[in-house]
Amino acid sequence: MIKAGIIGSTGYAGQELVRLLLQHGDVEIKWYGSRSYIDQKYYDVFHNMFEIVDETCMDDNMEELASQVDVIFTATPQGLCANLVNEDILSKVKIIDLSADFRIKDVNIYEEWYGIKHASPQFIEEAVYGLCEINREMIKGARLIANPGCYPTCSTLSIYPLAKEGLIDMDTLIIDAKSGTSGAGRGAKVANLYCEVNENIKAYGVATHRHTPEIEEQLSYASGKEVKLNFTPHLVPMNRGILVTAYANLTKEVTYEEIKAIYDSYYKEETFVRVLDKDVTPETRWVEGSNYVDVNFKIDPRTNRVIMMGAMDNLVKGAAGQAVQNMNLIFGLPENKGLMQVPMFP
Amino acid sequence: MIKAGIIGSTGYAGQELVRLLLQHGDVEIKWYGSRSYIDQKYYDVFHNMFEIVDETCMDDNMEELASQVDVIFTATPQGLCANLVNEDILSKVKIIDLSADFRIKDVNIYEEWYGIKHASPQFIEEAVYGLCEINREMIKGARLIANPGCYPTCSTLSIYPLAKEGLIDMDTLIIDAKSGTSGAGRGAKVANLYCEVNENIKAYGVATHRHTPEIEEQLSYASGKEVKLNFTPHLVPMNRGILVTAYANLTKEVTYEEIKAIYDSYYKEETFVRVLDKDVTPETRWVEGSNYVDVNFKIDPRTNRVIMMGAMDNLVKGAAGQAVQNMNLIFGLPENKGLMQVPMFP
Amino acid sequence: MIKAGIIGSTGYAGQELVRLLLQHGDVEIKWYGSRSYIDQKYYDVFHNMFEIVDETCMDDNMEELASQVDVIFTATPQGLCANLVNEDILSKVKIIDLSADFRIKDVNIYEEWYGIKHASPQFIEEAVYGLCEINREMIKGARLIANPGCYPTCSTLSIYPLAKEGLIDMDTLIIDAKSGTSGAGRGAKVANLYCEVNENIKAYGVATHRHTPEIEEQLSYASGKEVKLNFTPHLVPMNRGILVTAYANLTKEVTYEEIKAIYDSYYKEETFVRVLDKDVTPETRWVEGSNYVDVNFKIDPRTNRVIMMGAMDNLVKGAAGQAVQNMNLIFGLPENKGLMQVPMFP
Amino acid sequence: MIKAGIIGSTGYAGQELVRLLLQHGDVEIKWYGSRSYIDQKYYDVFHNMFEIVDETCMDDNMEELASQVDVIFTATPQGLCANLVNEDILSKVKIIDLSADFRIKDVNIYEEWYGIKHASPQFIEEAVYGLCEINREMIKGARLIANPGCYPTCSTLSIYPLAKEGLIDMDTLIIDAKSGTSGAGRGAKVANLYCEVNENIKAYGVATHRHTPEIEEQLSYASGKEVKLNFTPHLVPMNRGILVTAYANLTKEVTYEEIKAIYDSYYKEETFVRVLDKDVTPETRWVEGSNYVDVNFKIDPRTNRVIMMGAMDNLVKGAAGQAVQNMNLIFGLPENKGLMQVPMFP
Repeated sequence: MIKAGIIGSTGYAGQELVRLLLQHGDVEIKWYGSRSYIDQKYYDVFHNMFEIVDETCMDDNMEELASQVDVIFTATPQGLCANLVNEDILSKVKIIDLSADFRIKDVNIYEEWYGIKHASPQFIEEAVYGLCEINREMIKGARLIANPGCYPTCSTLSIYPLAKEGLIDMDTLIIDAKSGTSGAGRGAKVANLYCEVNENIKAYGVATHRHTPEIEEQLSYASGKEVKLNFTPHLVPMNRGILVTAYANLTKEVTYEEIKAIYDSYYKEETFVRVLDKDVTPETRWVEGSNYVDVNFKIDPRTNRVIMMGAMDNLVKGAAGQAVQNMNLIFGLPENKGLMQVPMFP
Repeated sequence: MIKAGIIGSTGYAGQELVRLLLQHGDVEIKWYGSRSYIDQKYYDVFHNMFEIVDETCMDDNMEELASQVDVIFTATPQGLCANLVNEDILSKVKIIDLSADFRIKDVNIYEEWYGIKHASPQFIEEAVYGLCEINREMIKGARLIANPGCYPTCSTLSIYPLAKEGLIDMDTLIIDAKSGTSGAGRGAKVANLYCEVNENIKAYGVATHRHTPEIEEQLSYASGKEVKLNFTPHLVPMNRGILVTAYANLTKEVTYEEIKAIYDSYYKEETFVRVLDKDVTPETRWVEGSNYVDVNFKIDPRTNRVIMMGAMDNLVKGAAGQAVQNMNLIFGLPENKGLMQVPMFP
Repeated sequence: MIKAGIIGSTGYAGQELVRLLLQHGDVEIKWYGSRSYIDQKYYDVFHNMFEIVDETCMDDNMEELASQVDVIFTATPQGLCANLVNEDILSKVKIIDLSADFRIKDVNIYEEWYGIKHASPQFIEEAVYGLCEINREMIKGARLIANPGCYPTCSTLSIYPLAKEGLIDMDTLIIDAKSGTSGAGRGAKVANLYCEVNENIKAYGVATHRHTPEIEEQLSYASGKEVKLNFTPHLVPMNRGILVTAYANLTKEVTYEEIKAIYDSYYKEETFVRVLDKDVTPETRWVEGSNYVDVNFKIDPRTNRVIMMGAMDNLVKGAAGQAVQNMNLIFGLPENKGLMQVPMFP
Repeated sequence: MIKAGIIGSTGYAGQELVRLLLQHGDVEIKWYGSRSYIDQKYYDVFHNMFEIVDETCMDDNMEELASQVDVIFTATPQGLCANLVNEDILSKVKIIDLSADFRIKDVNIYEEWYGIKHASPQFIEEAVYGLCEINREMIKGARLIANPGCYPTCSTLSIYPLAKEGLIDMDTLIIDAKSGTSGAGRGAKVANLYCEVNENIKAYGVATHRHTPEIEEQLSYASGKEVKLNFTPHLVPMNRGILVTAYANLTKEVTYEEIKAIYDSYYKEETFVRVLDKDVTPETRWVEGSNYVDVNFKIDPRTNRVIMMGAMDNLVKGAAGQAVQNMNLIFGLPENKGLMQVPMFP
């Protein structure tokens, strides 16, 4: 049994991680960390866990935790993991960080977009960006995983094959994304009240959202060019799900069959990426509660553009599920262990 | 491996049954029945099943099916199962009927409330009402299970202990229930369109809903008296979930602790019934996607009434999950096999 | 032009009052009170008001306000109006209090259920309970109106005719109510976040909700007996709307036509109460954005009970609309002035 | 009083038109057309109209109607208006067609995108595209108005000033739009059931949506160039509202203040277009139930693009409200007559 500790277990992503790990089979959760709910029963915070989890919430003590568990998940606000981690801890335990602290290789870009000083830049180089379908082999040997952001996961997987194959003009790339409200976190803010989100859609972080440089970095690796793109997220009145609609000019004339073959060649062996049939558009309802990313594309010959689309559950493949997938790779388990939930509909 | 066939696999309950059976471990689905979608790929009807189910939909042929499988689930409109079943079929295969055909022992009451002639009343006596927590032993030996209705499951389990113990005046019992919209089925009706259901709540079937005599029959067995009650269902703008709020006069003075002890004595060994802590009210969000029923009660000394409450997922414990629970009992499997999903939130 | 001031204009009810008064025609809003947003533009709090309201929010100064306006609306938490009001103010200005401070005639009951000391009990006797359909004449001469609670408005109007006519046994009365989430206010609480309310229904305040004694008092006046009843509110995932489902034993045998005639006799001259046709159940979607209350009933001969139902918009007839209706009565305007909005659907 | 007839009064747009005309003041509705509900009470189709509209639904007889009314609104599927209209009718009555029949000047493009033969192409030239803010003067003298589509209204108004001023490269224009579900109509289709739309977002009509050529035509007039663009609509789980997020390359370096001044110069005299303050993004909740379009923009200096955004109520400014605005212009009434509803929130 792998012993796991979670720092930040009472946010939406933390709770989803608990849900997945409880059903994993090879993992035992030893530490339900939550600064806000110390000494309270975990099931008092999330009543779905009543008679399932009997533990109480613990403080964020990474040092102590490192001596008790094999893997620490940090599902915390930006900056916390970078503040807590050190060489001693990393020598004892694997860390899978669901925050953005170690996702961006250029510390200046991190500090500029996140507006905070990075507390442990010495570990950035070592950290592996945990997008399993792309970085599988590096993940297996990592001590510190930067679990990708929700938007970057869906965006990168939707666009990657065409970026890598040089079929799209990266200078023309535009990503318009839509997310369910669990992505906004469980903090008590007026903007996230039911009556404010319901019956509404809005863009936010226009031209300034922090996931922009993360997506740009990953697609720069894929395309071999420095990418600058527009990324616009929108808040949708639903609990879970991210949908990405991305646009780019094609660099040459291609047929549906050619692009389909490319997507298939990248993803046909991938359990969690489903390339849909022709003209079937990805929808968030078909992946809810699962680790799947559904992708597809449409060529528009009138404009010579390709529209690339992806849908996934932001809390699973966009957070907790991908963290478990990373854990599986690190510990030599089957990559899909504990992640084969059939999407729940309706 | 148990071989299973589903007649009516493309309704919401049928699809939920598919989802649960796919993850069960001891079951193989051999027949995806659906008169409306014959010869279409099942995943074209429910895209969550893409790359998971490759089968095509088949016609409703119970005779043929009986020779191929060990258990048939009928998730079909009222009357169909009664029309298809016969002694030859029952001698070969177990039938778990998710419709109402065999739930009510008095065929006259069935015919009156459902407005149809019962096609095979000779099997009513034999059929076992599959409310597992109450009729466990009889279920184990049954050939034909009448899988309980969603409202009756939640209502009966919420009220049963106090009815059985004679603590409530059955003549004063009122059940006010609320259901998510998946309970209305997947038929294309204006009344169930998004814009008609969203931002709305209404009562329906007031004093005439067909689940009324089913609840009355079960609570008559419990209390040993003929029960006539008011049952009012409401349609709630959400996908899943049933909440029951039931009211009755207490027959004697009792304390919170006494009633709590009674609920605990009935349910503490039950995996799927959770008696909540004092003053925690059942909420549908905490059971979504799971087979749990959360129950609790509140004494009102001002009026000498007790308010009994229950919450469950109408598609799981209220339909497909309970059907699997029945199957487990019949085939000698652990009762909770394939049903230990942690409720999914949010 | 009537000059109006609003204390508490940045809650949901306060904002709805602004919306209605802006379209009234005979009213000018002179004071947008909001302690939380002093000196901020009102349209920065509610962007629907952009280019419509240019005023900034002001502090809660009732003394100052009394010298500037003809009528003060207080849409504030319990206790505030009672703390601010005094004889001098009442001699200068009409007050319509949307809080509970002056709704309950017995100050002990108020203090017990609300858990606060009443700061100005000397005005309770004088205050008129502003349920216009019942207390119309008294309202016309009042200085201080206790604007009814949302649940009490819908409950009382649904039940009043049968209570008044002695047709129901008041000892058997049970009210099961359901409300949209705007009723929970605009405070930043985890329990009211989108992801907590969406896809959920729950009861709250079971046997302890503060609207209970208010309903009991009004129905005691109607029936001429001291009423103790059960009132259970539920939170529904929608923005607006209250639905009441009430149950009581009939005191004698009556026909549909007889009860229909009674409802009609009470309400046929009432603009804002619509008695629906036979078997049409009230639904919140049909009254949204309007001051209507839709009521209907169903006799259940099996149990000798009548089910009384009502639907209204909690922010209009349940708060701001009724406040305007009271204002119209006080100032001698047509009672429906500014309140004839056709319900908005969908 | 203007006498109005509505053909297609029982769809969502038709019903919204009824709602607006009932509150207009200068209009009397003489004909509630609805082939599906002939001889049924209008309030039986829409119970919000109970005790407000007593008329019954009538067949679609434009000849007969032309002799009874001053203006006919057709809120019907594509092709119907073109089939019914003729010179005799146009000589007697004004027609405001909410369908697409007369929106596109090139009949070949209409027939190609809509897949039907145009039945009366001789009136296309005469028809005036009723986007009031752009074509005000022509509308005043028109006999036949092509009321713009919902997406084209929001898209065109959001982009128009920069297209007209030559500040954006029209070859780079991409429009990503999101709509509430009322835009899908009131037909009984599985895809529009509550459980299918709720908790989901999807793109549809990717690269093939029929509003594409309509938007292209209008922006071609604005820019003086033939425009080909990508337009991708998405279905959002909410009743009302359209949000447009549009992207284009800037043709020269400009500041926020310069672009703001351009938007202001086009719209500061426009009642129904609100140019929001800096960094305030349009949200559909702030325009619900009103005729407003909220627009704003954001320059991204990193990519040299401008993101143009607009939000409106698809049933008001996107359909019925704009139809009333056109009627007001034709009949010489104040353009905002009957359209000054304050947006309803929440």
